[in-house]
Amino acid sequence: MTAQALSPTLSADELELIDAYWRAANYLSVGQIYLLDNPLLREPLAPEHVKPRLLGHWGTTPGLNLVYAHLNRIIRDRDANIIYITGPGHGGPGLVANAYLEGTYSEVYSGISEDTEGMRKLFRQFSFPGGIPSHVAAETPGSIHEGGELGYALVHAYGAAFDNPDLVVACVIGDGEAETGPLAASWHSNKFLDPVTDGAVLPILHLNGYKIANPTVLARIPQEELESLMLGYGYRPITVAGDDPANVHQQLATAFDEAFDQIAAIQRAARLDGEAGRPLWPMVVLRTPKGWTGPRKVDGNKVEGTWRSHQVPLSGTRTNPEHRAQLEDWLRSYRPEELFDDNGGLRPELRAIAPRGERRMSANPHANGGLLMRDLDLPSFTDYAVPVEAPASESSEATRVLGAFLRDVIVRNPDRFRVMGPDETASNRLATTLEATDKAWMAEIEPDDESLAPGGRVMEVLSEHLCQGWLEGYLLTGRHGLFNCYEAFIHIVDSMLNQHAKWLSSSRELHWRMPIPSLNYLLTSHVWRQDHNGASHQDPGFIDHVANKRPEVVRVYLPPDANTLLSVADHCLRSRQYVNVIVAGKQPALNYLDMDSAIAHCTRGLGIWEWASTTTAEPDVVLACAGDIPTLETVAAADILRRRLPGLKVRVVNVVDIMRLQPDSEHPHGLSARDFDSIFTRDKPIIFAYHGYPWLIHRLTYRHTNHAQLHVRGFKERGTTTTPFDMVMLNDLDRFHLVMDVIDRVEGLGSNAAGLRQEMADARLAARRYTREHGEDDPAISGWTWDPDYSAPSLSQDTLSEHSR
Amino acid sequence: MTAQALSPTLSADELELIDAYWRAANYLSVGQIYLLDNPLLREPLAPEHVKPRLLGHWGTTPGLNLVYAHLNRIIRDRDANIIYITGPGHGGPGLVANAYLEGTYSEVYSGISEDTEGMRKLFRQFSFPGGIPSHVAAETPGSIHEGGELGYALVHAYGAAFDNPDLVVACVIGDGEAETGPLAASWHSNKFLDPVTDGAVLPILHLNGYKIANPTVLARIPQEELESLMLGYGYRPITVAGDDPANVHQQLATAFDEAFDQIAAIQRAARLDGEAGRPLWPMVVLRTPKGWTGPRKVDGNKVEGTWRSHQVPLSGTRTNPEHRAQLEDWLRSYRPEELFDDNGGLRPELRAIAPRGERRMSANPHANGGLLMRDLDLPSFTDYAVPVEAPASESSEATRVLGAFLRDVIVRNPDRFRVMGPDETASNRLATTLEATDKAWMAEIEPDDESLAPGGRVMEVLSEHLCQGWLEGYLLTGRHGLFNCYEAFIHIVDSMLNQHAKWLSSSRELHWRMPIPSLNYLLTSHVWRQDHNGASHQDPGFIDHVANKRPEVVRVYLPPDANTLLSVADHCLRSRQYVNVIVAGKQPALNYLDMDSAIAHCTRGLGIWEWASTTTAEPDVVLACAGDIPTLETVAAADILRRRLPGLKVRVVNVVDIMRLQPDSEHPHGLSARDFDSIFTRDKPIIFAYHGYPWLIHRLTYRHTNHAQLHVRGFKERGTTTTPFDMVMLNDLDRFHLVMDVIDRVEGLGSNAAGLRQEMADARLAARRYTREHGEDDPAISGWTWDPDYSAPSLSQDTLSEHSR
Repeated sequence: MTAQALSPTLSADELELIDAYWRAANYLSVGQIYLLDNPLLREPLAPEHVKPRLLGHWGTTPGLNLVYAHLNRIIRDRDANIIYITGPGHGGPGLVANAYLEGTYSEVYSGISEDTEGMRKLFRQFSFPGGIPSHVAAETPGSIHEGGELGYALVHAYGAAFDNPDLVVACVIGDGEAETGPLAASWHSNKFLDPVTDGAVLPILHLNGYKIANPTVLARIPQEELESLMLGYGYRPITVAGDDPANVHQQLATAFDEAFDQIAAIQRAARLDGEAGRPLWPMVVLRTPKGWTGPRKVDGNKVEGTWRSHQVPLSGTRTNPEHRAQLEDWLRSYRPEELFDDNGGLRPELRAIAPRGERRMSANPHANGGLLMRDLDLPSFTDYAVPVEAPASESSEATRVLGAFLRDVIVRNPDRFRVMGPDETASNRLATTLEATDKAWMAEIEPDDESLAPGGRVMEVLSEHLCQGWLEGYLLTGRHGLFNCYEAFIHIVDSMLNQHAKWLSSSRELHWRMPIPSLNYLLTSHVWRQDHNGASHQDPGFIDHVANKRPEVVRVYLPPDANTLLSVADHCLRSRQYVNVIVAGKQPALNYLDMDSAIAHCTRGLGIWEWASTTTAEPDVVLACAGDIPTLETVAAADILRRRLPGLKVRVVNVVDIMRLQPDSEHPHGLSARDFDSIFTRDKPIIFAYHGYPWLIHRLTYRHTNHAQLHVRGFKERGTTTTPFDMVMLNDLDRFHLVMDVIDRVEGLGSNAAGLRQEMADARLAARRYTREHGEDDPAISGWTWDPDYSAPSLSQDTLSEHSR
Repeated sequence: MTAQALSPTLSADELELIDAYWRAANYLSVGQIYLLDNPLLREPLAPEHVKPRLLGHWGTTPGLNLVYAHLNRIIRDRDANIIYITGPGHGGPGLVANAYLEGTYSEVYSGISEDTEGMRKLFRQFSFPGGIPSHVAAETPGSIHEGGELGYALVHAYGAAFDNPDLVVACVIGDGEAETGPLAASWHSNKFLDPVTDGAVLPILHLNGYKIANPTVLARIPQEELESLMLGYGYRPITVAGDDPANVHQQLATAFDEAFDQIAAIQRAARLDGEAGRPLWPMVVLRTPKGWTGPRKVDGNKVEGTWRSHQVPLSGTRTNPEHRAQLEDWLRSYRPEELFDDNGGLRPELRAIAPRGERRMSANPHANGGLLMRDLDLPSFTDYAVPVEAPASESSEATRVLGAFLRDVIVRNPDRFRVMGPDETASNRLATTLEATDKAWMAEIEPDDESLAPGGRVMEVLSEHLCQGWLEGYLLTGRHGLFNCYEAFIHIVDSMLNQHAKWLSSSRELHWRMPIPSLNYLLTSHVWRQDHNGASHQDPGFIDHVANKRPEVVRVYLPPDANTLLSVADHCLRSRQYVNVIVAGKQPALNYLDMDSAIAHCTRGLGIWEWASTTTAEPDVVLACAGDIPTLETVAAADILRRRLPGLKVRVVNVVDIMRLQPDSEHPHGLSARDFDSIFTRDKPIIFAYHGYPWLIHRLTYRHTNHAQLHVRGFKERGTTTTPFDMVMLNDLDRFHLVMDVIDRVEGLGSNAAGLRQEMADARLAARRYTREHGEDDPAISGWTWDPDYSAPSLSQDTLSEHSR
């Protein structure tokens, strides 16, 4: 399956031009890594022309540039709509060089003009303080992919291709990156791509043979094994291999013609001829030397074609004249005088072979997705509200309620909204979405299957990495989505979240990058209700992870019930440029707020629940809560307190948006000191029942006045397979323990309180005993509801009247 | 490649017995999921015999039991040494059932005897409050793998096989799990396994066709594609497929014979005939129905052979008589009366076909690695000390110094210590290890390669998942190791760390699980010195992630220099049952402590550095630091203060073990309130320069007396490609800013201090200007050292004498 043609694909002239274009990109790449000045080598290279600190990666760059030049030929010949994703994103100079050659760079960054002075600045700014990063980054026109953390190139490519039927996403996968887990799984994305409604992905596996300091696995298995692997992944490999530029140019041109012919044929068959079934898509294996065209040997060591060319092949160019001479020879080997005119502009014959306008990969609007973004057409979320006659008296499954809303979001936005889930969408009780759509599936379908079809808007694969990566690619190209996941396993994508959050932070500072839709997580099957799967499925730490990111980018919501979940979800789907984390329950749970109250509550982000409080004035104690289960336990504790310590003035506060707990100096959603004090008091005990690890609440609030009186209960890593109430008891988050906490912290409650405390301790023991005997929770506990008609005994009956302050 | 034999592999008797054994395991599995009582069905099944809450997973269980029974046959026939790793670990009842059938369960848990009452308890405890988890877990004899979070079965299997030449690790990979990234990458582990010195892994890809609610990718691609994929991964697939038990028994027996013959042949060729090169190892594709032998249809829906059998096929067995009748039929279909005697014991003819003693997979000591663990033979780490004549005057590369120590650890422990790294070992400056060993490599080797060989003790692959998983498998089977990684990318294994930490927590509570070596991380190329790779490589948040785990399991060390790193590393390599995180520098950095001082300092975990302080009495301000770069900036700030504000009493405190900052009530390493106060004072300002996100220090210390005066500088997510000093300035962690912080927080410093503050602000601007002009840091800053001979001017010259309290 090596690319071969009877007569050469490229004429001599075409070959000459494409090679010159490649040399120009290579020249500009080397220049960026090394040169401070003398950009066109108009004078002999002197020490002061060279950067004192050499930072950058050469090894992968000539390969990226080669592919770029050949993709340009395809774009021109076929008016193809292509974006370019480079897994080896540390080859930043190459992508910057090409954007500069195409003129895009100067359009976006007016200081970097297409002349000698512009080239000098282009070189100087690279990896230089105050300049641009060494990797492909948000700053690089034409990119949606950083590539610093390896593994996500191919999954991003697929995400970009979904619902973009005219787009081809060319994706270079480095052979280092190919060893990562996420990349290894990404090949199977072809089982989810519909040739009718989606675009195409052309994977280009670049085997330059080496990583930082080692050969790569895929370069060191027999060619037959490699081809078997690609066939096994469902691709038809086309191999290009060599180290003679002219020969490789011909091979690659032939290979790309073949690949794009195959893509066209597949799409024609599926779209016009109605051919069903999963096609074998083409992919290219490109074997060329690492650091190709760079120094062959340095200080006696072989460099070109080895791992030694990974970063900067010549390290002593400022102080070592021999290195400097080698650098000059290297740069001159590209014959810059043939490439650039006297003013430093690209010669017209080369300029002529670059694509124009939005067909330039560096200017393709898909790579600046906000340009193409269309708002979601959202139904009114209030139409899905559950009726709430009285707080905490009836139950709903919050995510199931949300599912109906999402179903209609899907119906209204058939080309720009997807729901991702790692085989958990039904388990997370979002199956209502499948009333309107199917689960995307291009593999074989059997008679008993349900809701599987090409083009389904729900995407399920048992890989959080793929869900996250597809969604990132989809969002970065201007579309919308939601990732639903078991809470514990979202940690699988911690590092992907890091990189996406960094991308968002950087792009916010770039005037030319248009805002894109937020990355929305719906985390459910959460720590408190994984009683059937046990400890491995119990971890609420993703919130902590997210809270470490830049505050302008992250939002965390813990809606306590169905209507608040609807309100929060609507808000998140409308938002831009954020990472929104929503943690919500899927099990039947009490509803607290009717729709109007839910909207008001979510708009404030937190608030006093007067219906559950025993005072509207300054309280003796604040019971705060965030998360559905902590809210349940808190309200149940408030119920015990109003009945048993009716003289105690209790304020119940519920927090939906936990970033509200920070000072306003630290987060845009933060509360002012005055607002915080007015809700949490300046000096009364706060018993805070929190969904996750308790110290997060301390970390958010430590600057506030009343922090010393804050006492947080949360998950302290005690979990197993048990009942829901046993789970909260294991972590001292249960209603009985909250009452004990109140008694321990409010002074002057007197002897009746001491009695109540003992009762509570006994109630915990009894609850545990019941559970261990019956294997389920005491229905008196699991069936608890709030009695709205209960009225406290008059104060004359107050057994705790000594407690009056 | 379907397993076939001319004459059946199993005689009629053998077939009968192996099927009976399988039925016994299936019976016990269903019993665990459903029954509270009436374990042997001696009376008709009544509602009260059934658990009120049904928690467990049936779907995968019959397949796991089938493989178990057939592996038992291999063990018996060949005296094979096999452990069993089950990717679909939610099939917990199956593994518990088999351990019970083998008698191991009753040996380990004496309450669960081999009789009717024991069986009743066995059933009752499963997924029951106070009982055992629903998944395969630390509690399950014979397991080293939880399987709750999918993806790590195969990589654990390889880790267990390394350096265990006589062991075969049989590993069932669920077809759901096979979709994950880590699993997809794990297949390539065969390029790192040496048939001479390592054992064998037999992957068994179990295609039961479904996940929770979807078909699986690998079950829905053509058989040829699947076989291509396995060949591409470097395996020789043997397929077993069917739904008729007798037929499948024969096929599987034949397939296992073939696979174990091939393994034996490969090992013989490599070990006796000296055959070099990577063999194609066998693997088995097993296609049997999900939920096989369970109810075919429930309420009109097909269950056996579909996703509907994933958890509990019959959900209404307590209240729905029809479901209960189906359950009873299902249980009786295994003919328990033929399997168990009147007392509930396994019938002797079945007992006779189980392996004995340590050959039982449930009792194999490799699955309780602490039993086999031998201590490391460690050289004296003090032999590798760098001489430190005066603090902060000369530089070393800390990790390079450590490399020499690790080299000799490798030399002395050729069979029980490995270093893992994602292609970063050289970059992390641990290449000295390669003086003593090679990097493990079974793929092709070319003439220019260096230090690659089968059996190398350093393992490099560009996958943090594989590094982590191999090491986990290696540790869990009683060996030792170290994972070196770029700090930012260790987040890739956040979720794997979660699971390992949970495993350690659970096994600590099991009397029969022997302690295993700690999981040691060396994180370097850290946030402050990724100036060449930029923002994507800058993230210190793994410490925060680890700090959320159970305190008895986690330790975090930030040695500031080479000698402290040696001391900490030695300590970690000797420790057991922990997760140790060491964050250290690889770049040339100042040495502060000679070896004796380093040992004393690391033993305390934190301490006052009197040489850098200006008082031995109560200070005016505490400068605290943790991490190499914060320590440098802090000491440099102390230098400025002693020269410029000589009247100011400064105490410098360095923290190596950050868990020391917690109260002793919260962490075993925590300080008592008195000790904390004596170091950090009760009321003086503390300026704390910290390596990572600043709020972690607040979270650790908020309970301490002087928390209100604590001011932390750290990484606040400001990073890019720039110089080292620019990085600290971007985050206000630089020496100048620390001096400004002191001036802002210490009262009564007077007007000279105000002048100094302005100077510091100017110095920051000048430093930035220098950097942007020259592309490197001002040598006056980067070359700073501590002058040990400097003596403060006498107080009469003290320009700040107004500051005397």
